[in-house]
Amino acid sequence: MLPFKSLVQIDKASTTPVFVQLSNQLGQLIRAGTLAPGQRLPGTRQLADWLQLNRQTIVAAYEEGMAQGWLESRSGSGTYVATHFTDLKPLPLLPNQPVAVADSSLDRPGYSFETNLLLVRPLLTYSAGLHLDDGFPDIRLAPMEELGRAYRSYFRWGNPQQHFGYADTKGHPLLREQLSNYLNETRGLRTKPDNILITRGSIMGLHLTCQTLLQAGDVVVTGETTWFGATINIRKTGGAIQTVPVDQHGMDVDALADLCQKQQSVARPIRMVFVTPHHHYPTTVTLRADRRVRLLQLAEQYGFAILEDDYDYDFHYLSRPILPLASADQRGMVVYVGSLTKSVAPAFRIGYVVAPTALIDALAQLRRIIDRQGDPMLEFAIGQLFKTGDLKRHFRKSLRAYHTRRDHFCDLLSTELKDVVQFTKPDGGMAVWTTFDSSIDMDALALRASRQGLSMASGTFHNPPGQQLNGTRLGFASSTDDELEQSVAVLKKVLE
Amino acid sequence: MLPFKSLVQIDKASTTPVFVQLSNQLGQLIRAGTLAPGQRLPGTRQLADWLQLNRQTIVAAYEEGMAQGWLESRSGSGTYVATHFTDLKPLPLLPNQPVAVADSSLDRPGYSFETNLLLVRPLLTYSAGLHLDDGFPDIRLAPMEELGRAYRSYFRWGNPQQHFGYADTKGHPLLREQLSNYLNETRGLRTKPDNILITRGSIMGLHLTCQTLLQAGDVVVTGETTWFGATINIRKTGGAIQTVPVDQHGMDVDALADLCQKQQSVARPIRMVFVTPHHHYPTTVTLRADRRVRLLQLAEQYGFAILEDDYDYDFHYLSRPILPLASADQRGMVVYVGSLTKSVAPAFRIGYVVAPTALIDALAQLRRIIDRQGDPMLEFAIGQLFKTGDLKRHFRKSLRAYHTRRDHFCDLLSTELKDVVQFTKPDGGMAVWTTFDSSIDMDALALRASRQGLSMASGTFHNPPGQQLNGTRLGFASSTDDELEQSVAVLKKVLE
Repeated sequence: MLPFKSLVQIDKASTTPVFVQLSNQLGQLIRAGTLAPGQRLPGTRQLADWLQLNRQTIVAAYEEGMAQGWLESRSGSGTYVATHFTDLKPLPLLPNQPVAVADSSLDRPGYSFETNLLLVRPLLTYSAGLHLDDGFPDIRLAPMEELGRAYRSYFRWGNPQQHFGYADTKGHPLLREQLSNYLNETRGLRTKPDNILITRGSIMGLHLTCQTLLQAGDVVVTGETTWFGATINIRKTGGAIQTVPVDQHGMDVDALADLCQKQQSVARPIRMVFVTPHHHYPTTVTLRADRRVRLLQLAEQYGFAILEDDYDYDFHYLSRPILPLASADQRGMVVYVGSLTKSVAPAFRIGYVVAPTALIDALAQLRRIIDRQGDPMLEFAIGQLFKTGDLKRHFRKSLRAYHTRRDHFCDLLSTELKDVVQFTKPDGGMAVWTTFDSSIDMDALALRASRQGLSMASGTFHNPPGQQLNGTRLGFASSTDDELEQSVAVLKKVLE
Repeated sequence: MLPFKSLVQIDKASTTPVFVQLSNQLGQLIRAGTLAPGQRLPGTRQLADWLQLNRQTIVAAYEEGMAQGWLESRSGSGTYVATHFTDLKPLPLLPNQPVAVADSSLDRPGYSFETNLLLVRPLLTYSAGLHLDDGFPDIRLAPMEELGRAYRSYFRWGNPQQHFGYADTKGHPLLREQLSNYLNETRGLRTKPDNILITRGSIMGLHLTCQTLLQAGDVVVTGETTWFGATINIRKTGGAIQTVPVDQHGMDVDALADLCQKQQSVARPIRMVFVTPHHHYPTTVTLRADRRVRLLQLAEQYGFAILEDDYDYDFHYLSRPILPLASADQRGMVVYVGSLTKSVAPAFRIGYVVAPTALIDALAQLRRIIDRQGDPMLEFAIGQLFKTGDLKRHFRKSLRAYHTRRDHFCDLLSTELKDVVQFTKPDGGMAVWTTFDSSIDMDALALRASRQGLSMASGTFHNPPGQQLNGTRLGFASSTDDELEQSVAVLKKVLE
């Protein structure tokens, strides 16, 4: 008989039941050819004795093996390795992969596999202590009570099969209707619910649009620099990115016009332009009115789509925000992407795409093979808060708070750090694009700040290849006036 | 002065405020060259009179135009078209696109755009009346009380910035830990939380895996026929699908071995095999033990990944379910994908991938450009119900219910429809693969049933090209015994 005691290794501390461990290892011995098809196994009492296990465990393991088809029982004569393994060639074991190392399968893949370096990007997230983040909302202001109540009302509803089954991929009808009205009222759009796809954050809107409109090799134009969430999505489709400069009035549309002509002449016309006219990321500048008009004209002339990312429209501190490009679009050139994650809380992943119905349908078709649908509870809850007016009240409340914080933070930067930083007070948004004196090493600065309890990004990932912007986004919205003062004090200290 | 009354069209029934409509249309007239840069606009009182609008509306529209940069005010002398439009070439209007048709932009895209027919697939969803669906759970059994309570406890937590900010793309730590234990206990896996990515349904696991492991042109093998959610995802990556037959013991692994050799000989080795060993979709057959062993051996020998979709493991009616391939995998060949949407409710979109950490990291990187993260409230709630044991109690309760329903439904099929249908009682899952007499037109049958209040799929989308299976999945789990009797009675009636 085989030396089962040394062949089988049981780990009693494992969460895998002992009988499963034993059954698996018997299966492995069969596969390895150590146990041959038709071979008789020791009796349960015998094996229990050898392995120092309870006999019931052996019985369960044998039963498991039979259920799995590894083993078979012959009445009155015991347990055997199944005979339909007869035509299996035992697999030769590689010397460095002993069968008993039970966890190796989850250590490294057995198939060839390479990490896609394209997808690596900085992780920007909330920090528990002091922070000048990428421009995140203050979730402490969010209408949690009201949201909780809306969730509860969803759970209380009558027919679970209807409310917790499959939902419309395009989003909950209440939210699409409410959002359509809200966008028309605040942004001068002329959308109907059918022009709206509810997504999980604006990133999903960018992802679906890029995957639907772009083919490998398509030329896409972005500003230099721009949001990495967009550039990675464009590159993932195989899109070839060309950049044009961004100055204090936004994307340089004359440079774009030249590029349009150049690309036309080499028969590789521009397929799409990605732009954030409202508050360009990372520098927060606004696209000037004449450039907007020219951009739309170019789109019509050259037939490219404009992917307009308007992620923080709701937070603008001038008397009235500039309306989006989509509002002036007469010929269906603009795919308009927005988000509520910056307006409520990132965990409530609600974004949207506004576009002609044909495109909305195509985006939804694609989405069905990704995650099929959003979260109907969440979509309902947000729709409900639009309906009750709670959400608009929340927007007004946070707008006031962020306005004050922006002013306070910019005053602090001007008074406390005036010798080392440069910035333009942003018209809107939640962060100040701040450039530091060129003598300052940004990575070292962020590290020193972090040691003093202040979390901030070094901003070096914003640098275009070969350039040193020495700038970073300093988010003011998620900190109170008092917290902003403490943060600037730390920054001042580590800059000395 | 221009005939503003005929140039401007105001729709008072629209949800877009009148002043926004007016301001937009003035902008359009500027773009069209009808209003020239530097041109003086009528006074507010004058225009109000012409357009029969309130003067305050005109004032607001002009202010809007100024905020947008279209218009400028010269003190004491009125409102003018902005002069920085001087160098804009007015865009010639196409005859069939008059500027005043304000809604055309959302009618059709202005860029070239084609629907991807590959993405079109049948929409399978719950029906309010009688139904024999694709194999959906009975949500009336789901632990709604307990889930609602878990959601409430999440909302009550202290620090909103921490709990409603950005979350781990891989999923809530509580759920990953609980799920890891559960999979080890029930499926004989040896996973740790780091080997798990929480997804939104198993489809997202398939999507991320295909997008990460496959390149255009890679050869992927599936059974014929198989789940369209998988084949569409494979094709979307540009993968070239080869099929092997599926019989009553699952995928024909001998045919796969031949194919491996053939592909090797033409230097286009198989990159991945998609398989559902537990209950093959659509036919519900189980992959026989010796074929499992052989499949793993082939994977090791030829270096292909096995994408194992185990979407309904929790519902098996024999004494013990067959353990997944992943449980016997010794060399990291298997990417294991599962789901809780079939075990709780489809709206609670929780699926998972189990794989070596390197792959999990890569899948999460990709996911960050799709939707960044799942829903932390939902992930916590499901984790909590694992922890309290409520979920396992629910699984046991539904298993008992579905077991009874399967038996009852199969009895009904045997007694009531024995002359026209053929089926094998499935070992598990939530549907019976039922083939109908070849004289029956399945599309006509489904239509007749639907007119009698019974919703069922015709199953024609399961047909491989050129074949007529004349079969469909009849789901029994979401109907009570009484509802099943009514459904079979309708089916019998329309078959007469």
